Amino acid sequence: MLLLPIDRSAPEPLHRQICDGVARLIDDARLEPGARLPPTRRFADSLAVHRSTVIRAYRELRALGYLESRPGSYSTVRQRYRPPGTRLSVPRSASLVHWTAKARLVRATPWQLEQAPEAQGNIIDFARHAPDPALAPDEYLRRCVKRVLAGPDRYALSRYADPQGLLALREAISRRMAAHGVAVTPDEILVTNGAQHAFDLVLRLLVRPGDEVLAEAPTYGMLLALFRLHGVVPKFIPVQDDGMDLDVLQRTLARHRPSLLFTMPNFHNPTGITTSQAHREALLACCEAHRLPIVEDGFDEELKYSGPAVLPIKSIEARGIVIYVGTLSKLAFPGLRIGWIAAPREAIARLVGVHRVSSLGGDVLAQAVAAHFYAGSHFDTHLRRVHRVYQRRRQAMLAGLDEHLPARVLWTRPDGGYTLWLSVPGAKGRESVLRDRLERAGVRVAPGREFFAHPHPIPHFRLSIACVDEAHIAEGCRRLGQVLR
Amino acid sequence: MLLLPIDRSAPEPLHRQICDGVARLIDDARLEPGARLPPTRRFADSLAVHRSTVIRAYRELRALGYLESRPGSYSTVRQRYRPPGTRLSVPRSASLVHWTAKARLVRATPWQLEQAPEAQGNIIDFARHAPDPALAPDEYLRRCVKRVLAGPDRYALSRYADPQGLLALREAISRRMAAHGVAVTPDEILVTNGAQHAFDLVLRLLVRPGDEVLAEAPTYGMLLALFRLHGVVPKFIPVQDDGMDLDVLQRTLARHRPSLLFTMPNFHNPTGITTSQAHREALLACCEAHRLPIVEDGFDEELKYSGPAVLPIKSIEARGIVIYVGTLSKLAFPGLRIGWIAAPREAIARLVGVHRVSSLGGDVLAQAVAAHFYAGSHFDTHLRRVHRVYQRRRQAMLAGLDEHLPARVLWTRPDGGYTLWLSVPGAKGRESVLRDRLERAGVRVAPGREFFAHPHPIPHFRLSIACVDEAHIAEGCRRLGQVLR
Repeated sequence: MLLLPIDRSAPEPLHRQICDGVARLIDDARLEPGARLPPTRRFADSLAVHRSTVIRAYRELRALGYLESRPGSYSTVRQRYRPPGTRLSVPRSASLVHWTAKARLVRATPWQLEQAPEAQGNIIDFARHAPDPALAPDEYLRRCVKRVLAGPDRYALSRYADPQGLLALREAISRRMAAHGVAVTPDEILVTNGAQHAFDLVLRLLVRPGDEVLAEAPTYGMLLALFRLHGVVPKFIPVQDDGMDLDVLQRTLARHRPSLLFTMPNFHNPTGITTSQAHREALLACCEAHRLPIVEDGFDEELKYSGPAVLPIKSIEARGIVIYVGTLSKLAFPGLRIGWIAAPREAIARLVGVHRVSSLGGDVLAQAVAAHFYAGSHFDTHLRRVHRVYQRRRQAMLAGLDEHLPARVLWTRPDGGYTLWLSVPGAKGRESVLRDRLERAGVRVAPGREFFAHPHPIPHFRLSIACVDEAHIAEGCRRLGQVLR
Repeated sequence: MLLLPIDRSAPEPLHRQICDGVARLIDDARLEPGARLPPTRRFADSLAVHRSTVIRAYRELRALGYLESRPGSYSTVRQRYRPPGTRLSVPRSASLVHWTAKARLVRATPWQLEQAPEAQGNIIDFARHAPDPALAPDEYLRRCVKRVLAGPDRYALSRYADPQGLLALREAISRRMAAHGVAVTPDEILVTNGAQHAFDLVLRLLVRPGDEVLAEAPTYGMLLALFRLHGVVPKFIPVQDDGMDLDVLQRTLARHRPSLLFTMPNFHNPTGITTSQAHREALLACCEAHRLPIVEDGFDEELKYSGPAVLPIKSIEARGIVIYVGTLSKLAFPGLRIGWIAAPREAIARLVGVHRVSSLGGDVLAQAVAAHFYAGSHFDTHLRRVHRVYQRRRQAMLAGLDEHLPARVLWTRPDGGYTLWLSVPGAKGRESVLRDRLERAGVRVAPGREFFAHPHPIPHFRLSIACVDEAHIAEGCRRLGQVLR
């Protein structure tokens, strides 16, 4: 007669309790190999459970290797091999490996925020920094997919991708880059699973733990997380009205030998600042003088909807020190992971090596669809539509802030992208307190601390118009004014 | 008058030569800021080129920031900012950064081989280790994609993916794992971009450069490349008829403290060996005793087409030390990058962190399509068809080898997967020489050196039936016999 403790109020299902109980008896050698288990019906009766519950428990025990049985016969305890001297003393439920202790440090990052669903209830969401699903060219995507599956690309799905990326997509990207003044051949392009993956590959190739890298302060929060993952030491150059402070950069380079410099010259995240052509040339000259590779993050290259076009740093360089990173994520479908690196051929060749060894290659379906998307005539139509909508939203945002915020609050006036940056000097309350008050007032913002490695004494907030329409922008500004006045 | 050397026989297009020539004159200060360039027509005449060639060169020079021009006016040399003391002395054509020297070591890997197109001309390709495109369920895939784009999943494309992977796919994988005796909830699964990406994430989380890891000898060549990328030190355990030599393993563990053990219990690549249930239990017990995490590579779990089913190591463990890696690549579409990790919840939580920071998340389209593919009723039909075809190919291969190869050549007789392993003791000639002779005889094989970190004295070859039909298998065996007899 087998006696097992069964707890009908426990959250664990009964069959799992029976399975665990029998396994423990076998582990503790109270049931020996070869021992017969009671027939399912009798065991079910003795435990006052349904027979199917016992049948299910026995099935799991067989799958776990505890029992064996022949059709129409008893279940018996299986002989499980153990080398001599390996008797285990830990409780069965605990893992033998302390995973958290073994793991390298991976800190919590502000990902949840990006993932937050749009306006829940009455919340106006200025935190979300991903293109508006309402503007997603769903129908166009469907057509692209159809074309991929009807054409020769579908055979490409039956092979591993070229780890450098589908040639048709690299050609489309090369043409798109040319439209922004950058002359790169498909050979000088590597397709990645989005921009973050591109940064990761660059860091894997070019830095070692303990290396120094230069970045803007404030900067994109996930870049800070990536620096931590790679164990590199960021040195921060403050962002001013025209981008990175070049005097601070010069002074830093006089004392340090960083491996890379990261910059977002267009609609910088979080401030929304776009640097001038003169600033770009000065930054380039300075990095050339120190032979310091520049990682140019062009995530919002396509999102200029007013003001003069300024060419990427990559377009004015002639000495092969700029690693340009582009992405499709901020333009249409963040779920379609397509980004790229445009860089000197020797750098690309090595980056392809890292990509190949770390994942064999990218997803052929996504790359083929993106190639059609970029190369098709509908792309420009989509771009014009997006520009029109966001230009209006931007105007609504600036008008709303002008109307509702007091004079001591400062903000940037970007010519493109999704974000602008609010500074609240002399605020009543700390940043986190203000943020909670804003949330309670029905307006969600991204707090400045997500973009600084070290706390900033003045409260800052990033406001994104990515997923808020004009009417809600006006109302959101009114709520901001209520709390920040 | 501007004089430029133009070389009509050079591979560089004329407009590029003109662009480079003018840029060099500006860089060398022989053209000063503000200087006027000749009008395009006059310049074209003086160089004896078409005017459009000069127009194109000027456009590039403007994009590069060398020239400026107003409509209807001359082009003039632009003032380019340079901080004092940053005059450059390197030739313009050379990159300022020595990328190859800066790069971390990424060695060439046998990827080209996997990519080799099937039988070119008269070559019978036993080297290719990817599912046969002729068996790809194209029509079923098309239906899955259609369903994704018609259903609610298409909205998911407008968001960044959950970095753990689409819930619907994790649920489908969890059910599939249950069919193989593994009880894991969707919480204990992380979707990756294929198996190689899964290994990479595991190594990123759990090892540091210089750590030791245990692997089989021979083993999957790309795993060796991944070890090099991570700077870990592999210790090899020889594979015998029933898998890893457990005595060698015990002795190694008495002297070393490795961080991980990698094993392929099913249709081991390259040997095709499947270990017994008893071997799996012994290996598990040994690793439990040393609290050594096991990475179980189940890449061919679905490809058992004869013999008894043996359950994964993950299915018999109860103490949370097994990290199971699965993949869709060997089953249907290698270009659709879908793999997964099934592991204890605490390990998964950290792995999700690494995945999120290194690429934000996976591709939603591929994941949604894979979820439909796995969960649909057609999946089993596809699996049965694949089994039927490969079982016949395997029989043809074994019959062909029995007929054509001399007795001193040895080979494995796998019950599934794509590969078998040939040992040629006492061969006339080294492995590379034999391989070249085989290639000349019209049969391509994967040489043993791809699977060993250190050269093996006996020539070995991996033969794959993945993409060769029965008639060609018979002919391929005849050719093998001609060379190896």
